[in-house]
This record gives sequence, C-alpha cells and structure tokens, in this order.
Amino acid sequence: MAGNDPLASWNEGSTKQSILNFVREVTTAGAPQFVTPQERIAVFDNDGTLWSEQPFYFQVAFAIDRLKAMAPQHPEWKDNPLYAEMLAGDMKAVAAGGLKGVLELATVTHAGMNTEEFAKIVEDWIAGARHPKFNRLYTDVIYQPMLELLAYLRANGFKTFIVSGGGIEFMRVFAEKVYGVPPEQVVGSSIVTKFEMVDGVPVLTRLPELNFMDDNVGKPVGINMHIGRRPIAAFGNSDGDLQMLQWTAASNGPGFALLVHHTDSVREFAYDASSMGKLEVALAEAAARGWTVVDMKNDWNRVFAFEA
Amino acid sequence: MAGNDPLASWNEGSTKQSILNFVREVTTAGAPQFVTPQERIAVFDNDGTLWSEQPFYFQVAFAIDRLKAMAPQHPEWKDNPLYAEMLAGDMKAVAAGGLKGVLELATVTHAGMNTEEFAKIVEDWIAGARHPKFNRLYTDVIYQPMLELLAYLRANGFKTFIVSGGGIEFMRVFAEKVYGVPPEQVVGSSIVTKFEMVDGVPVLTRLPELNFMDDNVGKPVGINMHIGRRPIAAFGNSDGDLQMLQWTAASNGPGFALLVHHTDSVREFAYDASSMGKLEVALAEAAARGWTVVDMKNDWNRVFAFEA
Repeated sequence: MAGNDPLASWNEGSTKQSILNFVREVTTAGAPQFVTPQERIAVFDNDGTLWSEQPFYFQVAFAIDRLKAMAPQHPEWKDNPLYAEMLAGDMKAVAAGGLKGVLELATVTHAGMNTEEFAKIVEDWIAGARHPKFNRLYTDVIYQPMLELLAYLRANGFKTFIVSGGGIEFMRVFAEKVYGVPPEQVVGSSIVTKFEMVDGVPVLTRLPELNFMDDNVGKPVGINMHIGRRPIAAFGNSDGDLQMLQWTAASNGPGFALLVHHTDSVREFAYDASSMGKLEVALAEAAARGWTVVDMKNDWNRVFAFEA
Repeated sequence: MAGNDPLASWNEGSTKQSILNFVREVTTAGAPQFVTPQERIAVFDNDGTLWSEQPFYFQVAFAIDRLKAMAPQHPEWKDNPLYAEMLAGDMKAVAAGGLKGVLELATVTHAGMNTEEFAKIVEDWIAGARHPKFNRLYTDVIYQPMLELLAYLRANGFKTFIVSGGGIEFMRVFAEKVYGVPPEQVVGSSIVTKFEMVDGVPVLTRLPELNFMDDNVGKPVGINMHIGRRPIAAFGNSDGDLQMLQWTAASNGPGFALLVHHTDSVREFAYDASSMGKLEVALAEAAARGWTVVDMKNDWNRVFAFEA
C-alpha cells in the first residue's frame, strides 16, 4: 500500500493524520466543513517551509554572488564596512546586519536591469550555485514531504500559492518547475519596477527601492492583494508566518494552520532562535490554538529526495 | 450553424476573423506560433471594455452613493466645494475635477472599514443600483460579445485576467459571477490595507491612502506584479490601456492587441474625447501597428444580453 500513499515521506501519526483529516473534511460533499474547489486556497511560505533557509536564506547567497560580480564596477564599496564584510563572505556580519542590511543588499544587487534580464541572471545562478552543507543545487535542497503535500492538495482540488518574504521575481524563475506553482500563484517581496520605452521597446526597469515587504503583517496584506480570498490552509515555519497563519485560522469556515519545526540537525538543521527563520511567538501560538506542528526529525521519514 | 458559433454576437468580417486566426495559430500543436496552455494569458481592461463606462465610471456612481450615505456624519463636507458638488449629483463637476478629484472621492469613500465590510457594502450596492440610461443593474450593462470572447478564450486553454484602473476589491465582488474571472485573476487599483488585531480578531483595515494606480504605465507594472508572465493577448478601449497593449504586442512570440472603439450612440455610447475613457493616442498606435479595432456599431450584432 505504501506505493499508493500520496504522503509517503510522512510517518504515520497525529501530524500526518491532521492533514488527512482536514483534506477529507473540506472535500467531502455534504460534510459540514465542505469547501467548494474554487475556495480551496492553500498558501505556503518558501524559506524554511518548502526549501531550507540555513545557514542563510538562499537568496542572500544569490545577492552576495551578485555583489561580487558587480564589485569591479564599484571600487567605492571597499570603503563601506558592510559591503566589505559581505564581499569577504563574512556571513555572520551579514546576519548581524539584520533585516536592514539584507534589504540594502537586495535592493543594490537586484536593481539596475529590466525584468527579463533579471530573470536570466537568476536562472543562470540557480542552475549552478551549490548549497554549502549539502553540495547540491539549491533547487535540490527542497523538502520531499512538502512536495508530496503540494501535489496531494492539488489532487484534491486546491490551488496552491507561495507567500514568502523572498523576492517575487526571484522565486518565479524556478517555482513552476520545482514546486508546480505557476508565476501568477507566487506572492513575495518586491522592489519598484518602472515601465519605460527604451529604443522604442517597452521594458520594466527594476529600481533600487523597496515596493512591498511580504513578511509578518505583510503576508495577509499580500494574500489579500494577490489572491483576494482568505486561504483555508496555511503552511509556515517561523515568526514571519504568524500573521498569515492567524489570518487563515480566523476564517469563518475551516482554517488549517501548520508549522514546520526544524528539529533534525543530522538530516537538515535544528534551530529556533536563528537570525533567519526564528520560531518563538508562532510556536507558542500554535500550542495555544492547537495548530499542527511538524517535528521534522520524527514526522518525516525522508527530508530530501537526494537522500540514500 | 449559428447555434454553434462561440462568437455569435460578432458579425462576420475582418475583426472577428483576426480573433479566430490568432486563437487558431496559438493553439495548433506544431504551428510556428503555438503557445503552451500555461502561457496563454489574456488580459482585459474592465471599464469600457467589458462593461460600459458612460456617462461615468460605475465605480464613481458607487462612490457618490457612498458619499451621500456618509454625509450625515460629515457636516464639514458642506463647506468643501468639490464634495458639495458631488453630493448635489453634479457629475460634470466631478468629471471636471479629473483624476485628482476621483482619487480623493475614492479614498474617502472606500476607506475606514475592514476588507470584509467593504465587500459587503459593494455587494449590497451592486445588487440594487441602476444605470441611468438603461435602467438596468450595472452588472447587466456588460458587453455580450466580450462575454463570449472570454468564454471562447477559456475554452481554448487561456487563463483570463482583468487588468483595470478600477478598484481591485470593488471588482472582485462581482467578477467571478459576472465574468467567470476569479478574485485571484483580478488586477486593479488599490488603497493601503493594514493588518491588525481588533478584539483578538485579525482584520485588514482599509486606509484612505492610495497604494497602486493600475492605469497607463501602471498596467504593465500590475501585470508583472500579479501575473509574472507577459500576456499573449490584451483587450482595452482607451489611452489608459496603451501601455498594456504595447507590453503585450512587444512579446517575442505572438502578442494580440485589440481596442474596443465606442461608435454606437444608439445601442450604447459613441465617444473618443471623453473625460472617462479617452481614446486618441492608442487609436493612432493601433492604426500604425495593425492592432485589431472593434467598431462596436458594425462588428457587434448584439451589445447587451438584455436587448430584444
């Protein structure tokens, strides 16, 4: 029977059962919690929920590689302590710089080209860059159980969206191929783009200015802006997902909320108090409200597809 | 055979033929212009393209009705010339106030409640308000040929989106029922919303501040933000749609651009130089670039479903 299990990488137990129960309740015609297919919206955080976020957000690795590539054209960066540390690959300094440093890094390295040029840069990078711990492409460092969950929900009539603090145009380059989530179902942070005619050709130029921060209180705002319906299921892993889970759980109808808890230091990483992906307030709220919490070490029999 | 014609309200001729040719070219496997279903994105303006926009944008009628309903709580409005004119129903003054006046009217009347309360207000209004010329519900004053076109494109694997200068949360209330376009496929202008907990319940509060103007140069920006792929077909009717059509037509692959030209003063309205829906620059560009232009009077044998 294992071959027919749509969630084969999930161990039997209360976590897996809570997912199966929820899906059965909302898809059984005539059941009190039945939800029509068009209202079956499921939202997934990306970093730490669909793929790893340690030892640093993968997009930060991209940004630093971009910074290095751009550095020869910017000799003045040597005199900027933050840039000098980043160029030297001092990731602790990057982490210590916090959100402000990461945002500055992102706007500087993600702007100055048009949208199609940017997509090509991401495409080239993601095809070759490798994760420092696993020595695998970043698009291999994705959670097999979550891929199964995405597919299982879609097989049950759900429309699956990514709602991430990561860059919307960064994720769109690979989300369809890797997760089966098309660009129009990716919600994320963004910088400002500007329509202009260049030599008679319309382009969208990316400017070094933050447009929208799709994190924390921004996630329900982003969901409302892009989707326009309240999700009936939300999947996250950090305090940045708290408001998305609250917004989903507060629905008048069913509202399933799940947190992925990183408890496996051998197969992946174990952390709560990281500068990237801190899980503290949301974990307490999950306990208080009875949300589902995945214990990666015990609930998943496989983390990555590349495992033996 | 007429009963089998998916575009029965379109007269035979070059306009209808250009649509049929385009759809055949992009859906014929192996043809040079073939486009995979997931890339078949079609974008439609709303005001003047899917429903009427004369004698004034329908959302302006909604805003003025809201202003009247709110006026008893705002005695100070009597001393504001613009508000006094709007409350007196002086639509010429509203039109003369231009975009700035309309925006102020929209932010004042569309803010101060949460997103669910706003949806309910729109729902109640649209269920009863009537168009001044046709004495019909506004949701009846939609173009039958365009409904057929939406359905025809969807039957051919297209995903249809609305991309309008109108309010995103205004249109979402009726777009699915009226046009078959779900909320997540509606792109529009917006005011700022803010996530907050009110008595322990998460809400999105609407603030009187413009967030995004989905018109002119904003349309390709909105398309990129919400859809993340370039459309292969775009349908508009005014200069506010010019950049959306340019962006679509400049695709490396097929890019079909169509303008609805309002030429029927008997069945609908005839206008080019209106303060709402001006068509001048885009009409010249259509001629120069060979875009399809619908002559409503001659190309449509029926404008509204309610016609005899």
